[in-house]
Amino acid sequence: MAQQASPLLAPDSTPEALGLMQGFPPAADKTIRFTDPDYFAFPKLRWTVCHFRELMPTTAVRNGSEGVSELPVDIDAGIDAVEFLPLGLEKSMTWHDAFDANYTDGILVLHHGRVVYERYDGCLDEHTLHGAMSVTKSLTGLLGEVLVAEGKLDETALVGDIVPELERSAFGDATVRQVLDMTTALDYSEDYSDPDAEVWTYAAAGSPLPKPKGYEGPRSYFDYLQTVRKDGEHGEAFGYKTINSDVVGWLIARTTGVSIADYLSDRIWSKIGAEREAFYTVDSIGTPFAGGGFNATLRDMARFGQLVLNDGKWAGEQVIPARVIASLRDGGDREVFARAGYELLEGWSYRGMWWISHDDHGSIAARGVHGQTIWIDPAADVVIARFASNPVAGNAANDPTSLPAYRAVAEYLMAQEQSPGLVGRE
Amino acid sequence: MAQQASPLLAPDSTPEALGLMQGFPPAADKTIRFTDPDYFAFPKLRWTVCHFRELMPTTAVRNGSEGVSELPVDIDAGIDAVEFLPLGLEKSMTWHDAFDANYTDGILVLHHGRVVYERYDGCLDEHTLHGAMSVTKSLTGLLGEVLVAEGKLDETALVGDIVPELERSAFGDATVRQVLDMTTALDYSEDYSDPDAEVWTYAAAGSPLPKPKGYEGPRSYFDYLQTVRKDGEHGEAFGYKTINSDVVGWLIARTTGVSIADYLSDRIWSKIGAEREAFYTVDSIGTPFAGGGFNATLRDMARFGQLVLNDGKWAGEQVIPARVIASLRDGGDREVFARAGYELLEGWSYRGMWWISHDDHGSIAARGVHGQTIWIDPAADVVIARFASNPVAGNAANDPTSLPAYRAVAEYLMAQEQSPGLVGRE
Repeated sequence: MAQQASPLLAPDSTPEALGLMQGFPPAADKTIRFTDPDYFAFPKLRWTVCHFRELMPTTAVRNGSEGVSELPVDIDAGIDAVEFLPLGLEKSMTWHDAFDANYTDGILVLHHGRVVYERYDGCLDEHTLHGAMSVTKSLTGLLGEVLVAEGKLDETALVGDIVPELERSAFGDATVRQVLDMTTALDYSEDYSDPDAEVWTYAAAGSPLPKPKGYEGPRSYFDYLQTVRKDGEHGEAFGYKTINSDVVGWLIARTTGVSIADYLSDRIWSKIGAEREAFYTVDSIGTPFAGGGFNATLRDMARFGQLVLNDGKWAGEQVIPARVIASLRDGGDREVFARAGYELLEGWSYRGMWWISHDDHGSIAARGVHGQTIWIDPAADVVIARFASNPVAGNAANDPTSLPAYRAVAEYLMAQEQSPGLVGRE
Repeated sequence: MAQQASPLLAPDSTPEALGLMQGFPPAADKTIRFTDPDYFAFPKLRWTVCHFRELMPTTAVRNGSEGVSELPVDIDAGIDAVEFLPLGLEKSMTWHDAFDANYTDGILVLHHGRVVYERYDGCLDEHTLHGAMSVTKSLTGLLGEVLVAEGKLDETALVGDIVPELERSAFGDATVRQVLDMTTALDYSEDYSDPDAEVWTYAAAGSPLPKPKGYEGPRSYFDYLQTVRKDGEHGEAFGYKTINSDVVGWLIARTTGVSIADYLSDRIWSKIGAEREAFYTVDSIGTPFAGGGFNATLRDMARFGQLVLNDGKWAGEQVIPARVIASLRDGGDREVFARAGYELLEGWSYRGMWWISHDDHGSIAARGVHGQTIWIDPAADVVIARFASNPVAGNAANDPTSLPAYRAVAEYLMAQEQSPGLVGRE
C-alpha cells in the first residue's frame, strides 16, 4: 500500500479546506464522530481540537460575572519578519512562516501585558475554545502548588495518607512533591505507539463511552489510578506520566472538597476577566481530566500566562501566592530531569508540572501534544500562547521551529524597546 | 414483587439526601452514568437535570462579554403564604407548599422586572444550569418567528422548498407556519409508554452513543427527520410532536447559515446580560437538540422571560421585533388546539411553539416535561421561571398545583400594588 510521503500542508488541511464538518448537516463523508477511530488523527484532528465539547461530556470552569478584562492591543507589524534558526537546521525561518510550519491554529504574544501579535487559522478564532492537551497539567500543578504554599497540602505527606484509596497503589508511598514533579517510579508506559502500553488501559478507563461487553477493567480515572504498580524508587528520575496529574487532581478534590474544575474557577478563571467559560472533558462519572482535558480560548490562556508572569497578581490583586511562581521559576532537579533523556531540552527541569528552561531569561513553559504552549519569558516580559494541530503529537516535531522562534521574538521586542525609533525608521 | 406505593417526597429524594454523585469519587452504588438505563428516571433524574453536560456532548450558547445584567431584588416575604385551590381539589395549598409538591429545583418570580421570590433546592442553585426540556421548543419557535417577522423565512413556504432533503418526508408539503404551530399531520407517536412509538427511533437516531452492532437506522436528528411519513392532512389539528421543533432548527440553520445554538446566542443570549453560557445537548454530528436540549440558569431563563414580557425589548434596545411577541399573544387556532384533547388546558392554543392560555391576563407559557416552565403574565407584569424534577414527566401531574398558583401569585402582586400599606400592616 502506498504511503503518503508527508501530510497535507497546514493551509490545505484546515477543516474549511477539506470541507470537514461544514454545513447543516455536513456531508456524510466529511462527518466526524466521537466513535470514529480516527477522530483525533490528522487531518480530522484539525477540527476536533476545537470541538471536544461537541464530541464528549465536559464540565464547566466558570469565568467571572464582572465582564471581560481588557487586553490592550498594540500590534507590532515587525514581528512577522523576525528571523530565527530552527534547531538543527542551517537555514533561517521567519516568525510568519513558522505559523504554518507548526500547523498553528492560533498564536498570541503579550509584551508588557499588551497584545503585540495575534493570528488565527484552521478551526480557531478569538472567541472559540481549543484543547490545551497537556498544558492542562500545568494548571493542575499550579493549583497543587497553591495548596502547598497556603499550607493546605503538605508536600512531604504521602499520597496514601491523603487519599486512602491510593494507599496500596504505586502512589501510596510517594510524596505530594514527587507527584507534583513527576519523579514517581511507575510501572506505566505512555508510549502511544505501543498497543500494550498502560496508557491505553488508562484511556479505556477514562473514556465516557460504554465499555465493550465483558469489560472487567477500571471504569474511571480514579478506578485506574488505584491499580498502578511501582517500578523502582520514587524521587530518582523524572518520568513524564499523565497519571501523576490526575493524582494531583484527586489530591486537590480531596483537600478542597470541590472538583479541580470548580477549584480552578474559584481561584483563577473567575478572577482574570476570562472571556469565555472554559471546560474539562470528563470520564463516565464526571471526573475532570486533570492530565489533559482543559479547553479555553487563546486569549484566556494568554491571560492565565500573564497571571503567572505577574507573579500571581492580576489587576493589583494577589490572586495566587507569589511564592508559588517563584518556586516554579527556581525549577526542579536538573539531574533528575536529565535522566529522562529529552535531547532538545538539555539543561531543563520540571517543577509543579511546568517545564523550566533555565535559560538566561528565566523562561518557563506549559506544553501539550500537537503544539499547545504557554511560553513565559520574564526577562522580556513576554507571554506567548499557542494552540496548534500539528500532525505529529510529540513536541519534538515542532520544538525546532518553536523554541528558537519564541526566543527571537522576545529578543526582538527587547531590542525594539531600546531603540524603537531606529527600527521604526528602517 | 412489592411496588412502592408512591415515590419519595421531594426533600427525601434530592441528590444530597440520597447521597447520589456526592464526593470524589461518588460511592459505586451512588454513581450515575449516561449508560445507566435509569439515568433519567426518578430519583436519579433529580441529579441528572442539572448535569446533562457531564453526561453527554453539548454545544455552547455564548452569553455577552459586557458582564451580567442586574436583576434588582425586592423580595416579597408574603408570597410564601399565598393560597390557591389546586385544580380538581377542594383543599387549598400555599405557594410555599407547592414548591415541594412539584419537586421544584428552583423558582423565581419577577414583578415589574424585580425579583420578588427566588428559592432553590435539590441539584440547583442560582449559579448552576438545569435542563429546560421542552421549554427549548419555545426558544426554537421564537427564533423561527423572528426570521418570519424579519422576512427571512416565508411562513407560507413549503418546508421541502427550503430544505430539499425534507422534500419527500411528511414535512415536504407542510408550510413553515404549520410546523411552527405543530399542526402537521405526522405518522409519529410521542407516547413514551409505547415501546414501538416512533419517538424511540428518534431518540436512537439522536443519541450520541455508539449504535448497536448491525444498527441500520438513522444516525442523526436530520437523518431521522427525512424518514417521517405523513398521516392525514396538515393544518387540521394540533399535534404536539418534538420533531416539528427540530425541523424548525434545521430551517433556522439553513436560513441563517449558523446552528440554532449560535443563532440563539447572536440574537438573544448575548444581548440580555446572561450570567452563564447556556448550552444544547447535541447528536453524534453536533446538531443541537432544538426540541429539548437547552440548559441554562434559572435567572437567565427569567431574563429571557422578561424579554418576552417586554415585547422583545431589553434595556431600551429592541432585541427582537415586537410583532413577534404580539403574534404569540394573539395565539393559534383554539379549535385546532382543542382537537388534541388537553383536559387541563381548555380554551388554550399553541403558536410559534408557545402555549397560549387565552386567560384574561393574556398569559403565555413555555412548558417542558417534569415541570419546567416560563410563565408570562402581561396583565400582572409577572414572569415566573421554574425548573423541577417531578417524578412524572407529563405536566398534567403538576399543572393542578402550578397553574392556579401562578395565577394566585399574580393576583396577590397586583393587589399588593393597589394597597401595599394595608397588606403590610396586617
